[in-house]
Amino acid sequence: MEPFGPRRQVEIYSRSPGSPEPLPIGFQEWEARARAILADGPFDYVAGGAGREDTMRANREAFERRRIHPRMLRDVAERDLTIELFGVHVPAPIILAPVGVQSIIHPQAERAPARAAASSGIPFTLSTVSSVTIEQIAAEMGTALRWFQLYPGRDRAVMNSLVSRAEAAGYRCLILTVDTTMLGWRERDLRKSYLPFMHGEGMANYLSDPVFRSQLSSPPEVDPRSAVLHFLDIYVNPSFTWDDVDFLRTQTRMPIVLKGILHPDDAREALTHGIDGIVVSNHGGRQVDGGVATLDVLPAVCAAVGDRVPVLMDSGIRSGADVVKALALGARAVLIGRPYLYALAAAGEDGVRAVIRNLLAELDLQLALSGCSSLAGIGPDLLWQSQAHSLDVR
Amino acid sequence: MEPFGPRRQVEIYSRSPGSPEPLPIGFQEWEARARAILADGPFDYVAGGAGREDTMRANREAFERRRIHPRMLRDVAERDLTIELFGVHVPAPIILAPVGVQSIIHPQAERAPARAAASSGIPFTLSTVSSVTIEQIAAEMGTALRWFQLYPGRDRAVMNSLVSRAEAAGYRCLILTVDTTMLGWRERDLRKSYLPFMHGEGMANYLSDPVFRSQLSSPPEVDPRSAVLHFLDIYVNPSFTWDDVDFLRTQTRMPIVLKGILHPDDAREALTHGIDGIVVSNHGGRQVDGGVATLDVLPAVCAAVGDRVPVLMDSGIRSGADVVKALALGARAVLIGRPYLYALAAAGEDGVRAVIRNLLAELDLQLALSGCSSLAGIGPDLLWQSQAHSLDVR
Amino acid sequence: MEPFGPRRQVEIYSRSPGSPEPLPIGFQEWEARARAILADGPFDYVAGGAGREDTMRANREAFERRRIHPRMLRDVAERDLTIELFGVHVPAPIILAPVGVQSIIHPQAERAPARAAASSGIPFTLSTVSSVTIEQIAAEMGTALRWFQLYPGRDRAVMNSLVSRAEAAGYRCLILTVDTTMLGWRERDLRKSYLPFMHGEGMANYLSDPVFRSQLSSPPEVDPRSAVLHFLDIYVNPSFTWDDVDFLRTQTRMPIVLKGILHPDDAREALTHGIDGIVVSNHGGRQVDGGVATLDVLPAVCAAVGDRVPVLMDSGIRSGADVVKALALGARAVLIGRPYLYALAAAGEDGVRAVIRNLLAELDLQLALSGCSSLAGIGPDLLWQSQAHSLDVR
Amino acid sequence: MEPFGPRRQVEIYSRSPGSPEPLPIGFQEWEARARAILADGPFDYVAGGAGREDTMRANREAFERRRIHPRMLRDVAERDLTIELFGVHVPAPIILAPVGVQSIIHPQAERAPARAAASSGIPFTLSTVSSVTIEQIAAEMGTALRWFQLYPGRDRAVMNSLVSRAEAAGYRCLILTVDTTMLGWRERDLRKSYLPFMHGEGMANYLSDPVFRSQLSSPPEVDPRSAVLHFLDIYVNPSFTWDDVDFLRTQTRMPIVLKGILHPDDAREALTHGIDGIVVSNHGGRQVDGGVATLDVLPAVCAAVGDRVPVLMDSGIRSGADVVKALALGARAVLIGRPYLYALAAAGEDGVRAVIRNLLAELDLQLALSGCSSLAGIGPDLLWQSQAHSLDVR
Repeated sequence: MEPFGPRRQVEIYSRSPGSPEPLPIGFQEWEARARAILADGPFDYVAGGAGREDTMRANREAFERRRIHPRMLRDVAERDLTIELFGVHVPAPIILAPVGVQSIIHPQAERAPARAAASSGIPFTLSTVSSVTIEQIAAEMGTALRWFQLYPGRDRAVMNSLVSRAEAAGYRCLILTVDTTMLGWRERDLRKSYLPFMHGEGMANYLSDPVFRSQLSSPPEVDPRSAVLHFLDIYVNPSFTWDDVDFLRTQTRMPIVLKGILHPDDAREALTHGIDGIVVSNHGGRQVDGGVATLDVLPAVCAAVGDRVPVLMDSGIRSGADVVKALALGARAVLIGRPYLYALAAAGEDGVRAVIRNLLAELDLQLALSGCSSLAGIGPDLLWQSQAHSLDVR
Repeated sequence: MEPFGPRRQVEIYSRSPGSPEPLPIGFQEWEARARAILADGPFDYVAGGAGREDTMRANREAFERRRIHPRMLRDVAERDLTIELFGVHVPAPIILAPVGVQSIIHPQAERAPARAAASSGIPFTLSTVSSVTIEQIAAEMGTALRWFQLYPGRDRAVMNSLVSRAEAAGYRCLILTVDTTMLGWRERDLRKSYLPFMHGEGMANYLSDPVFRSQLSSPPEVDPRSAVLHFLDIYVNPSFTWDDVDFLRTQTRMPIVLKGILHPDDAREALTHGIDGIVVSNHGGRQVDGGVATLDVLPAVCAAVGDRVPVLMDSGIRSGADVVKALALGARAVLIGRPYLYALAAAGEDGVRAVIRNLLAELDLQLALSGCSSLAGIGPDLLWQSQAHSLDVR
Repeated sequence: MEPFGPRRQVEIYSRSPGSPEPLPIGFQEWEARARAILADGPFDYVAGGAGREDTMRANREAFERRRIHPRMLRDVAERDLTIELFGVHVPAPIILAPVGVQSIIHPQAERAPARAAASSGIPFTLSTVSSVTIEQIAAEMGTALRWFQLYPGRDRAVMNSLVSRAEAAGYRCLILTVDTTMLGWRERDLRKSYLPFMHGEGMANYLSDPVFRSQLSSPPEVDPRSAVLHFLDIYVNPSFTWDDVDFLRTQTRMPIVLKGILHPDDAREALTHGIDGIVVSNHGGRQVDGGVATLDVLPAVCAAVGDRVPVLMDSGIRSGADVVKALALGARAVLIGRPYLYALAAAGEDGVRAVIRNLLAELDLQLALSGCSSLAGIGPDLLWQSQAHSLDVR
Repeated sequence: MEPFGPRRQVEIYSRSPGSPEPLPIGFQEWEARARAILADGPFDYVAGGAGREDTMRANREAFERRRIHPRMLRDVAERDLTIELFGVHVPAPIILAPVGVQSIIHPQAERAPARAAASSGIPFTLSTVSSVTIEQIAAEMGTALRWFQLYPGRDRAVMNSLVSRAEAAGYRCLILTVDTTMLGWRERDLRKSYLPFMHGEGMANYLSDPVFRSQLSSPPEVDPRSAVLHFLDIYVNPSFTWDDVDFLRTQTRMPIVLKGILHPDDAREALTHGIDGIVVSNHGGRQVDGGVATLDVLPAVCAAVGDRVPVLMDSGIRSGADVVKALALGARAVLIGRPYLYALAAAGEDGVRAVIRNLLAELDLQLALSGCSSLAGIGPDLLWQSQAHSLDVR
């Protein structure tokens, strides 16, 4: 395959300069475009974080502190961005993160990102609280790679039903989000009393679920309010512990990946529970305020896990440089959230496709310009090691 | 008791989004609201600090440097925020700090915060220089927990009288503010020649005090100016030393807590004088300019004190994350000042109630999301320990 | 003497709040006032620094990094700010720094600051390139303490004449500015082709000097241009070395202080040349761009000098907190420049008096609130010593 | 030679202050002037960097972290800025960096900078992708010192032809840019689909090259599009490795300097390939995003190279202070890019001359004011060595 980094550049530079409304390139421009299009409620729901949004800032600062130390005069004509994840070949170490209730930002909610991911071959992760059902997204994606994200719920029967449906619909990985046993304190949303779930958004998988429906006294079409209340009661569970993980482990053949692990001791514990992977994540800074940046804890988690299972990471990835830094510190792959959501809001499926292609192109170029022809070349040596950095000074 | 973190969220999210003038959520919004309502003099009196306000900035930066390192998959369905302070059960490690002359910002000066504190059970601390008397606040609060703050004054008889009145009126703790033996250099106030005391504000406890009145040649109702001058002469005392602390110790059965200790050697000294507690405080940055941040010295003070008496802290607490960080570094509880004052200015008692409830809710959620079901789980391990942090690098 | 810190506060707070145009309090407000009054040329000449003004910024950042660690419950009713400098009693460790050509900012150039200094007893330092002569300032000041600053010139006869005149006119100290063997690259002035000396400003001491006049072919009143050119030729000297210092040492009984020393090795060398004192200074950031902050090198210079001669410092002092930090790191006293110049520009002698009195008041309060009753109490222990600070991490 | 630092100052200060439109002095003013004159496409092409422009920021921050520690009272009346580079005497350690397609910013593209460099004697480096041919620039420059920059191309015959032409036209050094085996991801240009090469700009050396022309099926005058496509196909080469360097080494007697080396191991490798010099460069932050600052890696590269060949550096030099810092950390000389390009855009040859003369003047003054009479005096001791700096803490 011809490397797509320069190919994408040529494609963009070949547009006539005055062509109407070209799509944005960088994250900040996409964000501004989404900001202009969306109402305050949906925009802030996506853009905001917990509390004073200090964790969000920490995520970015952690990336900005690390510096790539490139090597020259190596043959980089052919670059290989592919990885193998949970036994499946993936064309690049990038995954669309699970994000719920996309209906608040675009009518093609979840469908558009799923199709965009499918077209490039990178995994799309469907959220438990999506606007579109597990089966509908499966239909959109055909044989393309898809993962399913599960919230740690209160009702094992409903959880099992959702997991079984995902497995039956061809999802290849189960992402269990362990950092959301209750909802974070999000000032932007609280200020506006804006929570999509309160109005029945993001319940597609529940409303379509036979077990969930069986627990309602009237069908949701008749008594939607009761359905919402039951959903709010069970969709997350503050008593969810390692025992529930063990139970879940018995319920599916899909690999189970814990998303939200930040401490090496939790990562070690995960290994003893037969977990297949870890996502170092702080939910994009949306749960704990004042929390540690994911990039800062990534090396310790990777050291604890070793080569036993893949460690992925998210929260703050905005550019190819960020991906390189995350991989250099031990991540096998990264998940992106807000970058594709802003593009979805601003330009639908075309937007998401553009974001994916641009990120892949930028990553490909970063690799080449750093002297790497494959991801195997990205290790700690690719980051500048001043003594200060080895101390992790911010 | 059902955990109030999520309950409060549900309460807020259940409001109809377009309801008129919802109260602010975060500190900065409250501050902006107060800024819009108050005249320059009162606003700056509350908001300002000493000199170039560098200590105020340092207070905040110290919080921003520390990062919470959460744990996952622990049962956090029931959280216990209660502590025991000076033999009394307190529902959460949060106290309303003593702040004087509240009449400049709201007609319900001190009464509104006292009632708001009483309604949630957290202690309210009445300032020596309050706008409302010791006895009036006691009447407002009934049996609710209240503390009394004392300035180190020049006249032992007046001090004793104030202390006796507080003890008689059911105040359960005496907070002696040791960092105010004279007034700091506050540029905002000096610029406007604004000092409420010059105009007789904040003298309620003195004007109602028989000892103070007996020292005047005419009653203050007849010669208010002389009363003000006598007050200004005695209300603080630059010669106040450990001997005076010893004297005070003999005058009351209330626990005595020194507020304004910043150095571990002063904390050690306090222990030898039979002090019952310490508040690590720099008076919200209002006394020494260029001073050390309270969070930065907290660990050293706690190390010096050990488990012998509780160490509290204030100056810069704005959010639940800040409370967690202070507790993780050794504080038993924290005091808040400006957060409740801005709310008082902007929305009176409802505002103070909202601030307290929101802070409790946020703290409760932070605990749960960090994997703690009680304050006992908040220790130094809950902060991220890079080598750099152990060096306290800013 | 009643302590003047609180006394000054009372004086200010006693003004009626609505009184017309009170003088500014803090540095930034004075700077804004000067900015509004002065034309660009003079303002930028005072405000600007070398190159990108990076040394100026470094000076301030060095202060902002250090934190005062106050002590409590010490008797601070009486504070003693006095020091002895070169055998003379000085009421506070503050000196008006030498600044030339003040005629560009106020008609009472040098006279007003000299009188203001005299009224408070702190030393005024007259610049070689002042707008008013040595003798005229002496007449203004009577017996008040005054120092004379000398540029390292090319012509020993003219230098000797200036030094003799100063000694005869009762100046008690000679400040030799060693960092100005040529003029720094000051972008603001170069941009506007603004250099006061090119137009004959700042030549009062030369035009009144018999030796200088004797070197001209026509009197300056007849041929002012030639006088300017001769002045520009001799007023600084890039070949000025330690030998010239030795020569100067033989020419006067005044103590000689080297201003502009930044390196401990230069300080050690100075001691071997019988120098009486050192001013750690980078000329307010006006000479070397990208240079080290004076506060950062102060400890090393003080360590090299020990107790043999006093070390003073300047460049960046804006507040009482800054004075405390400088003294804590070893300075015996500090010089202020821009703070009094902005006040001169904005309010003449009244302005300079206000700046001096406010700075003394603030320093006095800082002392008291830090638990010190005299300058002897200000040592390195008064600054917070985190491990990071002992590493001088910025 | 009279020192030109003060001479240049006098020249500027002697202008009448109100003279029409004096040229800017500092970098930021030149940048603003260029910004006002140029269209977005050309301005952003020059001003922009890779990705989020994080490498650009890192370059500047690395300079801002280092501080010059000046020495006093040394005879600096005569300063010697000269160096010897590759056997040639150069008047100052400053070189105009290779920058292509200058036709987009000024009709005197490359000619004006070449003449300006020639007039001051500092080397001008012609880019491979210049708007004007090798031979035309040689004719402009006469005997003045010029270097030729070569991109690592795909076609050895064309490369050889370019190199031979440069050698024949009197270029004295070959700068091989090793960091550009493909084009960086430059968001500003991509956003506007702006790449000058796509429109035939910057092809002068190719269109005039007999070997290149012989590879086209029709002359470029007949089929310009095919010429552009062939150019785009061969001008850079991601397979270019050390073997190609060895080959190039056999093709010319010019010294060969590798530009873009950032890692000490690559520098060591270069020495084994008989390379004559190294430029530590990250292409002004235009290739790798999130990359290491050149000043940060300079000491390690210099340590690896020792005295065997000269190490030059670029990327971020804006002022005389920056030059001093780079030299103190081991660079023999520095290259400047954007500073002269903005001046070219704003004021053509006069602008470039002014930038060069001002930079030399500022450097000369920085030397003198730091106590150095020649570049030999600029070593690591001239930078402030706190312990923190020895740790490279940012």
